[in-house]
Amino acid sequence: MPSEITAEAPSNIALIKYWGAEDLGAVVPCNPSLSMTLDRCRSVCSASFFEGDRRPDEILLERDGALAPAPESFSRRIAAHLVRLRTAWNRQGTLRIATRNTFPAEAGIASSASGFTALTLAVSRALGIELAPAELSNWSRRSGSGSASRSAFGGYVQWPAPGTADAASAAPVADAEHWPLCDLVAIVSSSSKEVSSLEGHQRAATSPYFRRRLELVPGRLDTVREAIAGRDFARLADAVDEEAIDLHLIMMSSRPPIFYWRPATVAVLAEVRRLRREGLAVCATMDAGPNVHVLCEPQCAADAEAALRRVEGVEEVLADRTGTGPVWRQGAEL
Amino acid sequence: MPSEITAEAPSNIALIKYWGAEDLGAVVPCNPSLSMTLDRCRSVCSASFFEGDRRPDEILLERDGALAPAPESFSRRIAAHLVRLRTAWNRQGTLRIATRNTFPAEAGIASSASGFTALTLAVSRALGIELAPAELSNWSRRSGSGSASRSAFGGYVQWPAPGTADAASAAPVADAEHWPLCDLVAIVSSSSKEVSSLEGHQRAATSPYFRRRLELVPGRLDTVREAIAGRDFARLADAVDEEAIDLHLIMMSSRPPIFYWRPATVAVLAEVRRLRREGLAVCATMDAGPNVHVLCEPQCAADAEAALRRVEGVEEVLADRTGTGPVWRQGAEL
Repeated sequence: MPSEITAEAPSNIALIKYWGAEDLGAVVPCNPSLSMTLDRCRSVCSASFFEGDRRPDEILLERDGALAPAPESFSRRIAAHLVRLRTAWNRQGTLRIATRNTFPAEAGIASSASGFTALTLAVSRALGIELAPAELSNWSRRSGSGSASRSAFGGYVQWPAPGTADAASAAPVADAEHWPLCDLVAIVSSSSKEVSSLEGHQRAATSPYFRRRLELVPGRLDTVREAIAGRDFARLADAVDEEAIDLHLIMMSSRPPIFYWRPATVAVLAEVRRLRREGLAVCATMDAGPNVHVLCEPQCAADAEAALRRVEGVEEVLADRTGTGPVWRQGAEL
Repeated sequence: MPSEITAEAPSNIALIKYWGAEDLGAVVPCNPSLSMTLDRCRSVCSASFFEGDRRPDEILLERDGALAPAPESFSRRIAAHLVRLRTAWNRQGTLRIATRNTFPAEAGIASSASGFTALTLAVSRALGIELAPAELSNWSRRSGSGSASRSAFGGYVQWPAPGTADAASAAPVADAEHWPLCDLVAIVSSSSKEVSSLEGHQRAATSPYFRRRLELVPGRLDTVREAIAGRDFARLADAVDEEAIDLHLIMMSSRPPIFYWRPATVAVLAEVRRLRREGLAVCATMDAGPNVHVLCEPQCAADAEAALRRVEGVEEVLADRTGTGPVWRQGAEL
């Protein structure tokens, strides 16, 4: 009988962005980042461990409701992570991994944060290893996805953990119940990115403005933390808006430049500014892609979502909110 | 009999931008700029001087083919300039000013550079003053429009004049015949700007990246000058693309931020990058507005113009090219 575990881990949206690495291989960032854990955008991963077995690992991904072997590039990163974990914990045997995301793959929401955290949690438990959340954060991050470090916790999460210079793991700064916010993801393009986040991290330091950005981040991070502590949306909104523009300024001034914005990205940003001028508690952020995450207080969500759906070029609006951390249970569900 | 003169002056498109003033009142820029003088985008100004007359000045602007009193804001700046010139040259009398632009007012092409240069030239001659081009540059600039300093010359023009720290006037760095290029102006919006250039100059230094930009400009200016000297389009294109993005990064990171891009701005920039990847000698620049100036070598102009017209959101493409400096003649034509 194999040891079978199913784990679920949340995606997250960064309010202060991880962009640029001191050491990309070791996943050590140039600056601290802070994210909000999401609720509905999750990865579910079942891991079955056949101890002593010498067959090759099986890595499956659910697409269109059916499990199938994962694409080459995806499967290579997972395989490397499985070797890393088994070696660290000194276990021999075969793993069967099956993963699905609760959000559409075409949504342009990074699935590596939730995916690698769910994988790391499921595999660790299947191998009989009990990881504290900070350890889960550290091992998930070592997959190569820095933002995975933040998906080990619910609520609002900072990486590296506040008060430490050690990039090993993230730590929560506030629970989800402290300040539930909505994240309306305006999907403007579902095609895959021309430049990967990994490539972007490598190019970040080629922007002549990157060093200046690094000087600005600590102050902005403090503002975001204070805004969260005081549930001060207006304060949060200014900092989040600035940070998102900053990230894309660095991308557009990298050598060669990286342009993620589509026409509808600009249209959504303009609509968010208009809604804010009209008194709605909304702000906008973007990751390394063209889609816009519109954060808002729950009482504004219906109005904001309706307005976003009217913007030309918006294909879909995914409504999510502040969520809790990963969970696991016995049994393989996939 | 009044003294009657008609002058014509060209608009210009900056390759290295004037953005941010050491002294906005005295029109002293924070950094040197360099532009290409345009050929078809011109202002025509007739000035009639009634010596000793004490009637108020008359300031007319042609719109939709008919002369009418100029709008308040426009007319106030012109009136102040007329007082400045008459006082400097110690003349008493009434001026009748009539101006038209050869390009549509809705095109979003700044008419202040060509307009104030044509006005200054027409008035100086009507008042019997003979200005050398550098003096015309200086007096036009003192209207408040820094870019007017560059419209006193044809070809490629630098302000402040190369090798001088004196912002009084611009000087040419190459004639129009040295390297004729095309400027295809992709009009994506004809509505007036939410934030004026004057306001933008004031906000420039509030961007945390402005000081860094000022460090970058001299090197980029040298590159542009060398590219012009050697007629090296690929070299020019990289520097012009970078400079245009830089300008808008400063705008978007000013406090409060200034967003000039429209959805179609992003679509045109993407199309220009695509054309360049396909081997066309094109690059893109933008002033303080959403329209995109696509510079190209003449042999690429037809293909580039056809491609730009196909971009969704492009209302019109104005085809212009490298032009010569201002001219004047006897008689009031307007």
